[in-house]
Amino acid sequence: MKNVINREIPDEIIEKNALNVYQGPFAIEPTIRQHGPKVTAVKPGDSKLVSSIEEIIKKTGLKDGMTISFHHHFRNGDYIVNMVVDTIAKMGIKNLTLASSSLTNIHASLIEHIKNGVVTNITTSGLRGELAEEISRGLMKNPVIIRSHGGRARAIEAGDIKIDVAFLGAPAADEYGNASGAVGKAVCGSLGYAKIDAQYADKVVIITDNLVEYPNLPASISQKDVDYVVAVEEIGDPSGIASGATRYTKNPRDLLIAENAKKAIVHSGYFKDGFSFQTGTGGASLAVARFIRKEMIDKGITASFALGGITKPMVEMLEEGLVKSLFDVQCFDLVAANSISKNDNHVEIDASLYANPHNKGAVVNKLDVVVLSALEIDTDFNVNVITGSDGVIRGASGGHCDTAAGSKLTMIVAPLIRGRIPTVVDKVSHVITPGETVDVLVTDRGIAVNPKRQDLVEKFKQANLPLYDIEKLRDLAINTVGTPDAIEYTDQVVGLIEYRDGTIIDVIKAIK
Amino acid sequence: MKNVINREIPDEIIEKNALNVYQGPFAIEPTIRQHGPKVTAVKPGDSKLVSSIEEIIKKTGLKDGMTISFHHHFRNGDYIVNMVVDTIAKMGIKNLTLASSSLTNIHASLIEHIKNGVVTNITTSGLRGELAEEISRGLMKNPVIIRSHGGRARAIEAGDIKIDVAFLGAPAADEYGNASGAVGKAVCGSLGYAKIDAQYADKVVIITDNLVEYPNLPASISQKDVDYVVAVEEIGDPSGIASGATRYTKNPRDLLIAENAKKAIVHSGYFKDGFSFQTGTGGASLAVARFIRKEMIDKGITASFALGGITKPMVEMLEEGLVKSLFDVQCFDLVAANSISKNDNHVEIDASLYANPHNKGAVVNKLDVVVLSALEIDTDFNVNVITGSDGVIRGASGGHCDTAAGSKLTMIVAPLIRGRIPTVVDKVSHVITPGETVDVLVTDRGIAVNPKRQDLVEKFKQANLPLYDIEKLRDLAINTVGTPDAIEYTDQVVGLIEYRDGTIIDVIKAIK
Repeated sequence: MKNVINREIPDEIIEKNALNVYQGPFAIEPTIRQHGPKVTAVKPGDSKLVSSIEEIIKKTGLKDGMTISFHHHFRNGDYIVNMVVDTIAKMGIKNLTLASSSLTNIHASLIEHIKNGVVTNITTSGLRGELAEEISRGLMKNPVIIRSHGGRARAIEAGDIKIDVAFLGAPAADEYGNASGAVGKAVCGSLGYAKIDAQYADKVVIITDNLVEYPNLPASISQKDVDYVVAVEEIGDPSGIASGATRYTKNPRDLLIAENAKKAIVHSGYFKDGFSFQTGTGGASLAVARFIRKEMIDKGITASFALGGITKPMVEMLEEGLVKSLFDVQCFDLVAANSISKNDNHVEIDASLYANPHNKGAVVNKLDVVVLSALEIDTDFNVNVITGSDGVIRGASGGHCDTAAGSKLTMIVAPLIRGRIPTVVDKVSHVITPGETVDVLVTDRGIAVNPKRQDLVEKFKQANLPLYDIEKLRDLAINTVGTPDAIEYTDQVVGLIEYRDGTIIDVIKAIK
Repeated sequence: MKNVINREIPDEIIEKNALNVYQGPFAIEPTIRQHGPKVTAVKPGDSKLVSSIEEIIKKTGLKDGMTISFHHHFRNGDYIVNMVVDTIAKMGIKNLTLASSSLTNIHASLIEHIKNGVVTNITTSGLRGELAEEISRGLMKNPVIIRSHGGRARAIEAGDIKIDVAFLGAPAADEYGNASGAVGKAVCGSLGYAKIDAQYADKVVIITDNLVEYPNLPASISQKDVDYVVAVEEIGDPSGIASGATRYTKNPRDLLIAENAKKAIVHSGYFKDGFSFQTGTGGASLAVARFIRKEMIDKGITASFALGGITKPMVEMLEEGLVKSLFDVQCFDLVAANSISKNDNHVEIDASLYANPHNKGAVVNKLDVVVLSALEIDTDFNVNVITGSDGVIRGASGGHCDTAAGSKLTMIVAPLIRGRIPTVVDKVSHVITPGETVDVLVTDRGIAVNPKRQDLVEKFKQANLPLYDIEKLRDLAINTVGTPDAIEYTDQVVGLIEYRDGTIIDVIKAIK
């Protein structure tokens, strides 16, 4: 069957998994109760300290068929997933569902554990590297479920993901489980994704390389949610944790995009005292933040809050008084990680408060402006950030569709072409974010406004911005690089893309 | 039937309410899942601001037979309970269960609403004043359920209390529901009891007299848990909120008790670097804190943490570096209320983290020393803090049985007699805290150690402390004031005293 944005979702997938297909960004009105984790009473005097990962796995009662979860705050420096799954494999436990907030290049050893039957299901925000490549070629019998950060929080709270055991790496923890990311060798700042796992998993394990005196304060994860604590040599590689993605771009094309984006924001009507924003970590996005900062200083405007994965430039704006507060679900660099424990207006938030569509109001709902990237965007403004031009998974859903749905102005920034590949196309290969939630596309060659936002069209016209129909930008791209060959897929579904509300917005098939 | 500490619990009460009787402090091993509140999706652009209490009650869908909840952080200055229940009464809604974290003198107008059938069930930590008097004389058909602070958190998480609508007063809140107690006319500091209601109630209402700009940070209650916000003229009387209970006593008897208590603590083996403690707000308790402070300075000892309702002396010890951190479920004075927002080591905790016996480790589990008061204590060390010598309810369960169960050293401080009333008796009229969890009684006339703590007996003997069998202290009391007349009760059960684990430890009958 086809869903409301005309993506073909195979009937057998829907039936087998009792899924709903996407019906619009706010079509689902939940009528359920939150999933309740198992109640466990820890008595005075009980010790939570366990000597090894193997011992801790035994104590949790992990069995074939269960669901284990992880967070991705250590990004490409993460040692936890491999350490735990390797141990589980040695213990002979099979058929597990791995529910990580994301997976990346460093997790290639999961390929072996998928082949040997230890891991048979995966849900994650994204996949990269060899693991993504193999999965894109049909490694797994069951499709990976791609969830946004808000969608994962929703799924956990709804019991769509029932976590039996959460294995949570913590840069600092005490023996009773109070855990934080603010200090230690593997400092990562916010533990925003892990906080949800700790609250809803039946068993919660803290793995740390920095056991500190009780009480470890402030605690991102509370002792009242933690079953066991284990100290290991190393939980992550600091150089992989702080990705260094926040260097300022000097790429003239990125700067041109950023200049156009800045103008569009300034003339959108949302750029006024007390506005709020989120920008990403890409070169153009960071340049937008830099340009907006200058506009704010020039015009005497301050922002109410900035949101997201937080980077050094955001921290600087907080410290300059240009932004009153930062809501931080994930720190992208050491400056952010060090700020969160020092500055009371730099606030750690969990993934549900960040972006869950089915709570009583996530922070994304209060966003005025979000600047997002795209691998592809089509003439319906649908955005792909999950698969490359070869159809291989190489990205992550992240907070893309969450912030797009929440923000008053959702702006996609992207170069019109990348190498020989057009960014603006007739139909994106896979949809993460539906066009209905996207307002503006800003490229190096011009700006396109979603026709449903005639108010913005009027404002941008008056400001003499370089406005085009999106079809015109597509034509410009195609005329420059030609129409790329279609990607060839098999019939095997290797990924289900879940919209933040739990419906299926698209599927990813194996590439030939 | 009789429970394990020989208190008679009428069979019909047990059967009618499907209750268990008390079997020992750690006898219950929960095998349930947490109660999940209803999931409600608030969309971008939805407003939570409502113009009046009546309008908000309509919006919540409050109906006959439902459960409404309140917190008691405004203590005797609370305007919220009366404001809300008066409005509900005018709207004609009946047969409600009122689940307040506590009730006090100011809530006498509930008498009318019990008589007219608006409120037919109550659960609370305590009752005082006219309301308590009337209930003790049989005002209500259904018995009040007395729960400790930890027991209430347990009951809410377990779904024993299913809150339909929580009406939560907040000294500061923004229009999206981020609420806090740190600033405003009705400043009360920690909102530790309210936090649980906000997380588990189906509908959550914030009532404030101080609507502030979004985002109100730090938020004790999060926007993601709040349905509606209403601004009213006044939510409380500041003079009733800060009780001024923290003045130093000059009463020589209190000072004598405190001196004995200090010696017992110092010689208990628990008084060493990194120890932890909780003391109450009574004159003798505060004097203990003062004496212990001096001992700490003299011996170069610092405490890991202090816990509880927090008072000015605790804040001073934090600021002096004598205590590394404060865990604060409730601020008893303005000094504490002002400190919690300024000092990163003064940490707000919710009632579950404070004292819930059925989570993975409440802070009470980490207590070394707790100093508690008693209205009566018997020769089995059972303690009554709920009814006076006339059998009338005039107290609260509070954190008494929670901290007693958790702490390594549980010390009761009390004068041997009060006026013509002995404190040490054969059998307390009502049990809040079972003797099994009490280690030491310190009076102005001497110290008694629970026989199960022979280790303490040895230590105190070596230190030449004035040790007596508790029977000897009882005899001393009776010899001084004589045996008081027995209180006469009817057969009507007006109160069920629930132990923290959800079992019935005692019942309160109406006085004749």
